[in-house]
Amino acid sequence: MPDDPTATASAAPEGAPETASETASEAAATVLERADALAARTEEPGRLTRRFATPALAQAGDLVLGWMRDAGMTAHRDAIGNVAGRWAPPGLPAGAPTLLLGSHLDTVRDAGRYDGMLGVLVALAVVEGARGRDGGVPFAIEVLGFADEEGVRYGTAYLGSSVVAGTFDRSALDRLDADGIAMADAIAAFGGDPAALAAARRHPADLLGYVEVHIEQGPVLEAENLPVGVVTGIAGRTRAELVFTGFAGHAGTVPMTLRRDALAGAAEWIGAAEAHARSVDGLVATVGEATVAPGTSNVIPGRVALSVDVRHLDDAVREAAVAGLRARAEEIAAERGLLAAWTEVQVTAAVACSPGLTRALESAVEGAGVPVARLPSGAGHDAAVMARICDVAMLFVRCAGGVSHNPAEAVTAADVAVAIDVARRLVDALARER
Amino acid sequence: MPDDPTATASAAPEGAPETASETASEAAATVLERADALAARTEEPGRLTRRFATPALAQAGDLVLGWMRDAGMTAHRDAIGNVAGRWAPPGLPAGAPTLLLGSHLDTVRDAGRYDGMLGVLVALAVVEGARGRDGGVPFAIEVLGFADEEGVRYGTAYLGSSVVAGTFDRSALDRLDADGIAMADAIAAFGGDPAALAAARRHPADLLGYVEVHIEQGPVLEAENLPVGVVTGIAGRTRAELVFTGFAGHAGTVPMTLRRDALAGAAEWIGAAEAHARSVDGLVATVGEATVAPGTSNVIPGRVALSVDVRHLDDAVREAAVAGLRARAEEIAAERGLLAAWTEVQVTAAVACSPGLTRALESAVEGAGVPVARLPSGAGHDAAVMARICDVAMLFVRCAGGVSHNPAEAVTAADVAVAIDVARRLVDALARER
Repeated sequence: MPDDPTATASAAPEGAPETASETASEAAATVLERADALAARTEEPGRLTRRFATPALAQAGDLVLGWMRDAGMTAHRDAIGNVAGRWAPPGLPAGAPTLLLGSHLDTVRDAGRYDGMLGVLVALAVVEGARGRDGGVPFAIEVLGFADEEGVRYGTAYLGSSVVAGTFDRSALDRLDADGIAMADAIAAFGGDPAALAAARRHPADLLGYVEVHIEQGPVLEAENLPVGVVTGIAGRTRAELVFTGFAGHAGTVPMTLRRDALAGAAEWIGAAEAHARSVDGLVATVGEATVAPGTSNVIPGRVALSVDVRHLDDAVREAAVAGLRARAEEIAAERGLLAAWTEVQVTAAVACSPGLTRALESAVEGAGVPVARLPSGAGHDAAVMARICDVAMLFVRCAGGVSHNPAEAVTAADVAVAIDVARRLVDALARER
Repeated sequence: MPDDPTATASAAPEGAPETASETASEAAATVLERADALAARTEEPGRLTRRFATPALAQAGDLVLGWMRDAGMTAHRDAIGNVAGRWAPPGLPAGAPTLLLGSHLDTVRDAGRYDGMLGVLVALAVVEGARGRDGGVPFAIEVLGFADEEGVRYGTAYLGSSVVAGTFDRSALDRLDADGIAMADAIAAFGGDPAALAAARRHPADLLGYVEVHIEQGPVLEAENLPVGVVTGIAGRTRAELVFTGFAGHAGTVPMTLRRDALAGAAEWIGAAEAHARSVDGLVATVGEATVAPGTSNVIPGRVALSVDVRHLDDAVREAAVAGLRARAEEIAAERGLLAAWTEVQVTAAVACSPGLTRALESAVEGAGVPVARLPSGAGHDAAVMARICDVAMLFVRCAGGVSHNPAEAVTAADVAVAIDVARRLVDALARER
């Protein structure tokens, strides 16, 4: 249920604990405890699954709202169910801008406990650290916990941030989940208001920027032995389906020279795609699905469908790679008497992080005594949506084995402490700048 | 229901039509009409499916038994449900041997109408042509229509011929079909007798040999523009499962250099297997199944299971190829940080066709004015089982596009006429030899 934003005081209550002196290490311990508490709010006993607008998401949001209020924030749910807590230093002039910090609270099925939640909890730690310090902060800080980033329930990602950014596509309201429940009905049942989504958008003039802390979801920081890294941008992505069609035949009776084996052609193309991606800095190409028909051990495959996922931070590089891979598929098909059919499924342009905010974040990393690693994000994030209305920057936190979307997802308290330290230093630097 | 073998006369009834003068072309037209009639006996409306011991197989067998009796043969079903028709020329001495001709009457699901049936119907045409000719035939001819070669119902092939050859494995009687019906019960319900299977075997001393006509199920004869070909032997086969295990990861966040992509490794191996098979005369290697896990477009595959099917007429060549392919899998896995696990599923030794009977068949092909093409059979056949008790030879008939196990299976009347002519010439030659 969305909370009435007028129901809580906007200033810290008398007698609230002073947390400014809390060290980053202490704050990191709290972050990990809170991540454990959130992980217990799940749709499925024994594993963490928390989709959009479910009772489990409501319970997780209630926990976060409580922590926000404990930290002296004005907290509420918006029309789609994002939780938002606002802290303004005493005496902040009207019209002062707002710095947004946050990430998402929904998860994939059988998820880890940090993807999304870590960014919300570090943001809370920043506010808890900023309260009552010497020296004012000349802007408000708002912590956002988006209600949907993974898109598991409705097959469409970024519902939460798209409402805040004003890019929500209302046609999505008619989508049905696996139980036949329309998104509009799910929002209403969750206590939101489908009719008020447009009004829930934030206005660029009010915003200083959006900063998101997130686990890396990849192995680069671990390989470089660094706790955190600064994200340069969010890679663009081309998703396609590539189908090779040949001619099914008996595995025993058709000589090699007379075969039109769709899987042999697909295998050659997979090798070519891997070799090309390896040859271009920062390019990744992945075949995650391969469906072989008829799919019987004694029949030469007549048809193979591959999923193709190509990403790069530079859209031109990605587009050139896609064109090359597509042409290679046609060459291979022609050489083998196959047909190759390429269908574009989805194209997402790259989003660069904002230079100014990112430089400030790099300075904060340096200030924390950590060498600055710059890396692209191959995964999508709410920051890419928020970039439509304000400057954005992102900090990645090393995660064990680069694993995400898996219960084995793990971070260390020491790394989380670095992330908190960096985020606090960023707020300090932004305060000094203004 | 098995028929009582004593219920029909063993000699041609008075007034039976003389078919000796029927030309091979006329006989071929009859074969194609009969194949159409058999195709209408099916378990599934609209497509041909005729598994072991089903009512559809009983109906098909009844048709064949009728044609056998019309041709003056003594006809019955044996203990497992094979149909068998015996023709002995008038005055044949007791103790004269028997030439077996035939193939199988069961089919795969959604089958063609010639795989198996063609060999039974050509055998009938041979008997119909042999009757009442000038010059005696110094042996009996028996036409066999095996009740199970494809093994669809019980997942085990050659039930019919293994009873005749005395190699039936009684433990198979406990197998259950998809409806939970034990094989022993299915045989009894079909009118057979599980207790009498051993007694139904034929004895080597009584047999002149077994000759099977079958569609090629491959494209070689079509490519060589020949109606028929002489089979040199039935290739041995190794079936295996090859599993590559790597490490699943996010398709966007793991750089190419840090991946352990099971599908990329599998693709490299598929290419190596194809190249090796192409380099060895007569070798075929097929990957018909590939199962990718987790199998999601945005996840680097962590595990890929491949089916492997390797065949060659020379067991030593096949075994060397298998060892090489297995070693190559381990090399690829080592280079890529993967694990490769090879599990042998089934090994079947090659069966050579009998030199004497095959030379006689080659002479018959030459006598029919057709260049002699010799080719191995990559598919298994009842002849491989029958080779345990007698000489065997096989004649392949060109089929359209090399297609089999498919409703599109097709032969021409002209090619069938050649096959009938060749089979009749073989019988004549064997008669002259004795």
